[in-house]
Amino acid sequence: MSQPAPTAAILIIGDEILSGRTRDANMHHLAGKLTEKGIRLREVRVIPDEHATIVATVRALAAAHDHLFTSGGIGPTHDDITADAVAEAMGAPIEVREDARALLAAHYAKTGSTLNEARLRMARIPEGATLIDNPVSAAPGFTLGNVHVMAGVPSVFQAMVEGLLPRLTGGDPVLSETLRLSRPEGDVAADLGRIAGSFDDLSFGSYPFIRDGVYGTHLVVRGTDAARLAAAVAALRTAFPDAA
Amino acid sequence: MSQPAPTAAILIIGDEILSGRTRDANMHHLAGKLTEKGIRLREVRVIPDEHATIVATVRALAAAHDHLFTSGGIGPTHDDITADAVAEAMGAPIEVREDARALLAAHYAKTGSTLNEARLRMARIPEGATLIDNPVSAAPGFTLGNVHVMAGVPSVFQAMVEGLLPRLTGGDPVLSETLRLSRPEGDVAADLGRIAGSFDDLSFGSYPFIRDGVYGTHLVVRGTDAARLAAAVAALRTAFPDAA
Repeated sequence: MSQPAPTAAILIIGDEILSGRTRDANMHHLAGKLTEKGIRLREVRVIPDEHATIVATVRALAAAHDHLFTSGGIGPTHDDITADAVAEAMGAPIEVREDARALLAAHYAKTGSTLNEARLRMARIPEGATLIDNPVSAAPGFTLGNVHVMAGVPSVFQAMVEGLLPRLTGGDPVLSETLRLSRPEGDVAADLGRIAGSFDDLSFGSYPFIRDGVYGTHLVVRGTDAARLAAAVAALRTAFPDAA
Repeated sequence: MSQPAPTAAILIIGDEILSGRTRDANMHHLAGKLTEKGIRLREVRVIPDEHATIVATVRALAAAHDHLFTSGGIGPTHDDITADAVAEAMGAPIEVREDARALLAAHYAKTGSTLNEARLRMARIPEGATLIDNPVSAAPGFTLGNVHVMAGVPSVFQAMVEGLLPRLTGGDPVLSETLRLSRPEGDVAADLGRIAGSFDDLSFGSYPFIRDGVYGTHLVVRGTDAARLAAAVAALRTAFPDAA
């Protein structure tokens, strides 16, 4: 039984990415996990830590896709405004929730820190949201409607993704095959275009690379039907017998 | 004389980024260069290789910002559709242009390859566009209105950025200072928020990290006025005498 792939967007919230100070790692990590799960990532946006911008972008992306995953802005400081902005975007009230407060209290009791007013902000969870477990530093993420709100610190983000993804329904996994050619793209474009045109249900990508001054090309075919994928790879191997 | 910072967006075009196959490097590279130049990066989007999506996104981002920089989709293969999509978005006719053809012809004559029909697609340049030099592999990018179209291969993208940026007018460079604290964010949030509130013309970021199991925090202050920045750093050092 074929299961159409749900669609998704990722929203990275953070001035530090836009300024070039920090190199985002979460987009690439989650992109790979979504592909494995059969969820089709359609769009990524990176925006600044601004309330109105977050609200408007969350509304647009949550309406356009089956899932929206956010990264960043759920810590204890003044620039951590994601939870409140998502609550506003989704029309949900938000306040300190007892289940989240209890998680934080237990964590800080264990580590010998105090659950001060700043940290208590991390227990602000919109009404109706489901918590996303944070096995690294306790402060939870949450799912509200189709929006999954997670931390920006990569180790925490990745742990949250591990906890969240098993709860989501994927589609048929996208299968892919890669052929490597020691020839520049321009030499293979005509045959590749012809073959791609005869497999409308698959997607064909061509990715040039330069290694030690030599031009090469990776051909990537993607689709959900293994037999069609095999037929396309056979056609490519006939056209490009030198492919590795 | 103070020069307000122009705003910018980056548009990364590529299925291979969204599938998780390739890790984008161009966003981070250009983000740092724009900050140095005093151009304020406000948004990044990653979208698939789809004509209608590219046209709509280019229109939206070019209208919203002083500059739009694109990465990807200007090679010789069937999935390289950026130039035509940008031309349509901006209402410009597009065809093979003689200056671009001459660049390619000279390059392939030198390397012993042929300027075949596929490669000639890389000479499709919208009417009225200015070429962006490609010292790596000849096929040029272009600037059309406020849209700067560049290659996705990182070495080519970076070379194009080097050629392009000196042509653009920047604003006052954004200065930044970073303080490193060996304490978790939650311990510094209250004082940080108070200080940030008294310097409305600066931006204060707080970035937690975990190293060898120990929680630490980077505090970053950004602004264009060196004296104000120094005053803010002094206030932070008073509040956090343990800052490195």
